[in-house]
Amino acid sequence: MGQLTGGDPSLLRRINSAVVLHALRATDAATLTEITRVTGLSRPTVEGVVEGLIEAGLVVEKAADDSVARRQGRPARRFRFRAEAGHLLGLDIGAHRVAALLADLDGRVMGATTKDVDEAAGADERLDKVRTAVVELLRRAGVARGSLRAVGVATPGIVEADGTVRLGAALPGWTGLRLGERLSRSFKCPVLVENDANAAAVAEHWKGSATESDDVVFVLAGLSPGAGSLIGGKLHRGFGGAAGEIGALHMLGREATPETLLSTTDEPLRPLDERAVAAVFAQAREGDERALEAVERFIQRLVHDVAALVLALDPELVVVGGWAAGLDGVLEPLRRELSRYCLRPPNVALSLLGEAAVATGALRLALDHVEEQLFAVEGTVTGRR
Amino acid sequence: MGQLTGGDPSLLRRINSAVVLHALRATDAATLTEITRVTGLSRPTVEGVVEGLIEAGLVVEKAADDSVARRQGRPARRFRFRAEAGHLLGLDIGAHRVAALLADLDGRVMGATTKDVDEAAGADERLDKVRTAVVELLRRAGVARGSLRAVGVATPGIVEADGTVRLGAALPGWTGLRLGERLSRSFKCPVLVENDANAAAVAEHWKGSATESDDVVFVLAGLSPGAGSLIGGKLHRGFGGAAGEIGALHMLGREATPETLLSTTDEPLRPLDERAVAAVFAQAREGDERALEAVERFIQRLVHDVAALVLALDPELVVVGGWAAGLDGVLEPLRRELSRYCLRPPNVALSLLGEAAVATGALRLALDHVEEQLFAVEGTVTGRR
Repeated sequence: MGQLTGGDPSLLRRINSAVVLHALRATDAATLTEITRVTGLSRPTVEGVVEGLIEAGLVVEKAADDSVARRQGRPARRFRFRAEAGHLLGLDIGAHRVAALLADLDGRVMGATTKDVDEAAGADERLDKVRTAVVELLRRAGVARGSLRAVGVATPGIVEADGTVRLGAALPGWTGLRLGERLSRSFKCPVLVENDANAAAVAEHWKGSATESDDVVFVLAGLSPGAGSLIGGKLHRGFGGAAGEIGALHMLGREATPETLLSTTDEPLRPLDERAVAAVFAQAREGDERALEAVERFIQRLVHDVAALVLALDPELVVVGGWAAGLDGVLEPLRRELSRYCLRPPNVALSLLGEAAVATGALRLALDHVEEQLFAVEGTVTGRR
Repeated sequence: MGQLTGGDPSLLRRINSAVVLHALRATDAATLTEITRVTGLSRPTVEGVVEGLIEAGLVVEKAADDSVARRQGRPARRFRFRAEAGHLLGLDIGAHRVAALLADLDGRVMGATTKDVDEAAGADERLDKVRTAVVELLRRAGVARGSLRAVGVATPGIVEADGTVRLGAALPGWTGLRLGERLSRSFKCPVLVENDANAAAVAEHWKGSATESDDVVFVLAGLSPGAGSLIGGKLHRGFGGAAGEIGALHMLGREATPETLLSTTDEPLRPLDERAVAAVFAQAREGDERALEAVERFIQRLVHDVAALVLALDPELVVVGGWAAGLDGVLEPLRRELSRYCLRPPNVALSLLGEAAVATGALRLALDHVEEQLFAVEGTVTGRR
């Protein structure tokens, strides 16, 4: 990166700061000489920028290693990025559970908490649980609320760019909820809202099963599956944010509802909730013939949903997460059916992040936002949008 | 666009040429003063560049308008882009038909020809038909083969980047065919090969039903439907070029084959070709009860295929083309079912280009290639990849 001359001096300062921060963040600690070499900036520029970053609390001088000090007399001063200068939250607001992750500015997770929520809980009760989880998490980690720089939130449904849930049938009172705005009242920093399967796709690409692939479909397998896709490493939201909202896919041209699909009697399974489904799976494990058939039908439906996504998108890799990913024998029929129906079958993997995938993706969105703010150099913005 | 100084002088000349060509192509004709103003280049630079472009045959002085000449004495010389300096072909190689379009460097179509091909014809016979069509088309238009700058080819199947058909079940002898290489023997210019539905999507976006939208799914509706998608205005090919190869979509979890679907008896319809299908549709138009049911089943299947694509991709617009688009009553059930199954139903339109869509898309690909060569300025490459 060459030194820039001319133009708006404050813009120039900002760019140089970003360049130095970027360099410091990529290493444990560096001397001014090393920063000068890596950035291509002049020594006086680097000195000025580092001084400014120290004042802003983003950089600190690293204490000299004693043995080095004794050996060399007075060693060169070394500086490091203060990842502890700010914090991020990743929130997962689901049907039965809210989860929160806390991380520093390097995205290193410092703490996590989850709370069970009643499936039937309304929006207010659910948001209260979220706030309680955040309070506990911050207190346990000894992090002040004012230190938060961004909050990422992931939740089922179609999410508008402004953080409104346009449609969220899975959670009571969710459709039309101005979720971003509601949560913003609890935080002074930006709150970013994303669909849960989309967030999980981002998470698996960041630190899960999909770190090696930029063309990924993540399937959040459950009673009503959802999917998130990365195309060329970027989230594909669709024109209206509804891409991968495949809840209705298995109904196309079929009579069977999930209630009949999972029933072990001649009557539909009602109420159809995870407890009822868990009971069917338990029966199947004990060898019950009709329960085994029901599980088989359920897996087939999931496999067909995934196959339809693959035919439409042709990803390199499919990652299966969500609770149904834990079912015995999801992967094998999935691979078999994909190679049967798809002209170019993709690789298939289970989620590495499991239950943490959605909150981890929300955290990554918060980190992306902060990186855009801190490290954006014109034309080389790091980030997702 | 500012004038560039320093660096490789030949690169600089090339960039300045591209800038001037770009400016001239956007207008009928322009004076040196106008070109200077539009491009931001200096007068001597523009003079040098225009001289070079005249020598290269890409620009010509436009004859002065007589009335202007009389009125003003000696008017400023005006120059125009020579769209006739080169030509492009768009080829559609299908199961029953090959079609060819000829255009100038502005993409203006100068001629078209089609030839019927036997569905059972092998690769050699099919390619012979293509060559015959091209010979006729060039002769009729009075264009020399050597004037061709690029040839775009569109065909069913998964097409590799090098022009090999990885998988093409619709045409005998097509799988594994090095189509790009085979056709390259007939031309001295580059030959670009693309999947037919992908090409049609590009065509509808260029000059069809989708000029107003960058997020489009084009469905080539037929016995075995295919689809092409534009995301943000760019073709989405998928990781392995198989995106939208939805031939197997309707088979997911279903017993009914197209042969039983379209049958009006208790026996499957064999052989299942377009002639047999046309007969069923004719019977339906005459009010035959079982034919009407068969057509209804066929349309339902198409509708469900499209719905699956929409759930996966969430486009702004779905364009339906291919022969089945002409069926009475495709659009109405499509809209109804999409609004039933999709959380955010897209707009739906019929193809405007009809049978010409695939060849038109192939032509556009050739034009893209030429534009990349002629008009590419670093960082502002016009084109599709």
